[in-house]
Amino acid sequence: MTQVAAIIGGGVIGGGWAARFLLNGWDVRVFDPDPEAERKIGEVLSNARRALPSLSDVPLPEEGVLSFHASISEAVAGASWVQESVPERLDLKQRVYAELMQHVGAGAVIGSSTSGYKPSELQDGLARPGQVVVTHPFNPVYLLPLVELVTTQANSADFVAQAKEIITRIGMYPLHVKKEIDAHIADRFLEAVWREALWLVKDGIATTEEIDDAIRYGFGLRWAQMGLFDTYRVAGGEAGMRHFMAQFGPCLDLPWTKLMEVPEFTDELVDLIADQSDAQSGHMSIREMERIRDTNLVAMMRALKWADFGAGALLTAQDKRVRDGTALGAPLAGRDLAAPILVLDRAVPLDWTDYNGHMTESRYLDAFAQSTDRFMELIGCDADYIAAGGSYFTAETHIRHLDEAHAGDRIRVTSDMLVGQGKKLHLFHTMWKGDVAVATGEHFLLHVDLATRRPTPAGDGVEAAMTAIREARAGLPLPEGAGAFIRSPS
Amino acid sequence: MTQVAAIIGGGVIGGGWAARFLLNGWDVRVFDPDPEAERKIGEVLSNARRALPSLSDVPLPEEGVLSFHASISEAVAGASWVQESVPERLDLKQRVYAELMQHVGAGAVIGSSTSGYKPSELQDGLARPGQVVVTHPFNPVYLLPLVELVTTQANSADFVAQAKEIITRIGMYPLHVKKEIDAHIADRFLEAVWREALWLVKDGIATTEEIDDAIRYGFGLRWAQMGLFDTYRVAGGEAGMRHFMAQFGPCLDLPWTKLMEVPEFTDELVDLIADQSDAQSGHMSIREMERIRDTNLVAMMRALKWADFGAGALLTAQDKRVRDGTALGAPLAGRDLAAPILVLDRAVPLDWTDYNGHMTESRYLDAFAQSTDRFMELIGCDADYIAAGGSYFTAETHIRHLDEAHAGDRIRVTSDMLVGQGKKLHLFHTMWKGDVAVATGEHFLLHVDLATRRPTPAGDGVEAAMTAIREARAGLPLPEGAGAFIRSPS
Repeated sequence: MTQVAAIIGGGVIGGGWAARFLLNGWDVRVFDPDPEAERKIGEVLSNARRALPSLSDVPLPEEGVLSFHASISEAVAGASWVQESVPERLDLKQRVYAELMQHVGAGAVIGSSTSGYKPSELQDGLARPGQVVVTHPFNPVYLLPLVELVTTQANSADFVAQAKEIITRIGMYPLHVKKEIDAHIADRFLEAVWREALWLVKDGIATTEEIDDAIRYGFGLRWAQMGLFDTYRVAGGEAGMRHFMAQFGPCLDLPWTKLMEVPEFTDELVDLIADQSDAQSGHMSIREMERIRDTNLVAMMRALKWADFGAGALLTAQDKRVRDGTALGAPLAGRDLAAPILVLDRAVPLDWTDYNGHMTESRYLDAFAQSTDRFMELIGCDADYIAAGGSYFTAETHIRHLDEAHAGDRIRVTSDMLVGQGKKLHLFHTMWKGDVAVATGEHFLLHVDLATRRPTPAGDGVEAAMTAIREARAGLPLPEGAGAFIRSPS
Repeated sequence: MTQVAAIIGGGVIGGGWAARFLLNGWDVRVFDPDPEAERKIGEVLSNARRALPSLSDVPLPEEGVLSFHASISEAVAGASWVQESVPERLDLKQRVYAELMQHVGAGAVIGSSTSGYKPSELQDGLARPGQVVVTHPFNPVYLLPLVELVTTQANSADFVAQAKEIITRIGMYPLHVKKEIDAHIADRFLEAVWREALWLVKDGIATTEEIDDAIRYGFGLRWAQMGLFDTYRVAGGEAGMRHFMAQFGPCLDLPWTKLMEVPEFTDELVDLIADQSDAQSGHMSIREMERIRDTNLVAMMRALKWADFGAGALLTAQDKRVRDGTALGAPLAGRDLAAPILVLDRAVPLDWTDYNGHMTESRYLDAFAQSTDRFMELIGCDADYIAAGGSYFTAETHIRHLDEAHAGDRIRVTSDMLVGQGKKLHLFHTMWKGDVAVATGEHFLLHVDLATRRPTPAGDGVEAAMTAIREARAGLPLPEGAGAFIRSPS
């Protein structure tokens, strides 16, 4: 049954949560008294629909149903998750929680997006404090995986496990903060950097643009993959973290660490920063910047996914969870072998396209190569088989382009095995957009011994699987276009 | 003539500079009294040789000559750049500068890698203070582009321009800090975050691993591409930076901003952090971590290069500078058209390979597609032509794999035009590793009107260029393998 999330307070953060849940198949019910809420959430959702499917190499579930409601009591009906993202005023939040206690089912998780308050401050005086936790996300919520899950003694272990499980299921990472503190973890760093940045601008040392360049051309790239301590661990060299601290710890006594007052927040400082920011990026609208940011994040996170590291490793784990429940995840034994075999089902990600949003040439072969990998896996040439020293190498490939695909298009590849015997494997893939064939890929592969790099017959299990497919498809006609060849010079 | 850089002080930073200069074609002369200096720099260089060529889509220049010298006077002979990276002790640095003044030519730039001292402190009392600037890089120096170039009134405008030009030429980005300050810009942020991180670990709020996750799953990904102010500009929405500051500025008065003392740097704190770091990453050697880090950085920076944004846009500009001086950059008019046309020359980047370091299938087509793009550009179907509404679309592709390529291999593609007339373009690319053909790509393209997506004849300039190639190659035999087709089912 479709699960329901209630979103209390829309805006950029609430809207981001709404998009996360919706695109992961949940129904989402929103309460926000702002008459602009529907428009604002619609804009976040349109960004999310553009970017989130790109992070996945398997199809996301069918999108849930989004609805807007006039009261908290109506919005939370049937909800197993309630996400509160109202403004950062404790009295306001406490009033919302008192009302939630009257209407939310006792089994639901109530998470707060607060970036500053401790969960005990939100739980204080409630009838069922154990139902409330902090689940602090990061903008854009539909792309960045981090959720700071801050709990107290009032939350049972089972309840915390349930909250973690749901956060994980919607493709996010629950970082469990077990000892509550103002501003949790990440925002303490953001605060420290913000404070320092205000000084640098105020004192005329650097402009907003120079500060951004100092971050994104240097340590920002380091932090995006390893964070702080592992970065310094590497900097310390083989002698490790103790060596690093011996070398750099004393820097804390150098003069610049004494500069820690907060600059006065005057109109002049606000003007200075706003004017510099206009000079830096005023040529782009915020909407354009959001899309540029999302495209960059998708491309970098997919780069980390290729490396199977950091935020990219989280994506791989999420794909596996999702795939296991789809037709694509079904083993060969559960399939109709007389039909072409489904080997790929995914959205065209943003980074597979050129500046026109047109799927770029080499990514057709990327999709077909992924299709071949999945076919191999299905016939038993999986990671274990490859680790044991056997695999297939492609000798020849023939691609025909029949139509175009664009970013966000859902594409499926079905595969016909034309030959599968001994050392030979001849596959004919068809890429579909709906029921339109956009391309075909014909591939001749040889089974090889990975030690000698020479052709050898496939192992018995693989041979048996190929025989089963061959027998199921005996007498069926060749797919249209198979065995065709490139036009000769004319 | 080959330019010479002198490296005073090896280690991780000096070694990184040595690698930057060497791999960009400079001769490098090192002085470091440490008997281990040659081994240490060799290790940095081996990392750099693995990773730096991956950032470029064109070949780097021939590597320069590395030599080690017993004295400063010998090391700086003929140097137009001297980079000082000795330990962070002002008295030591001042002694080095006094000696440099006696031996360095008056035209050379002397840059200091200092992360803390102001250039005026280094220039103080020198015979030619105008020759000394701070050029503070970020580890790994051979990959990250940022150099904080900090100058004083003693440095002439021409001298600063010269320093910037050299930094740019070796693929780095000179961020000119015109008002000197302790710790420049970036390290002030690193210092602020480090201080906060020490508190969090000391108070048992988070472990080193949890802090790293809080960064790399969240704001680290944002900062790697847009930095701080543009990230907040987007967060503020259409109302812009003033709105953001009105909303979040007051957070500076919340309680957590008051926590700004420096934690005492006790043995217990060092043990706590070092033990947590061991638990987090002790299963990897620092060497392994360096390679993982470099692979991640390469993949993310190349993702930003695809997006033509941030650090990626710097890479594109650097490629253009380098290509203009190579055979690949030559226009059609300057080439021998009777021979196959050089259309690609590059290293196989790390992110084109699978877990075996084996160039992955779809990247052969990526290389061939880049080759086709270059061929089109050479015959006049360049960015302007495409913007005016004409282009070529690939209809069919046939790839034959003849041998293997691996990360770091230098590959070249030459192209034979089999047909080039009217709306038709039939190309046969051969990919070479040295004089071994590793793959061929045969491509049939149609010239299209981008508005209608229908075939139309090429424009006059393109037709004339194709005619010139056709005439030059008339009567020459077809390349081996051209017009071959995929093996039929057997």
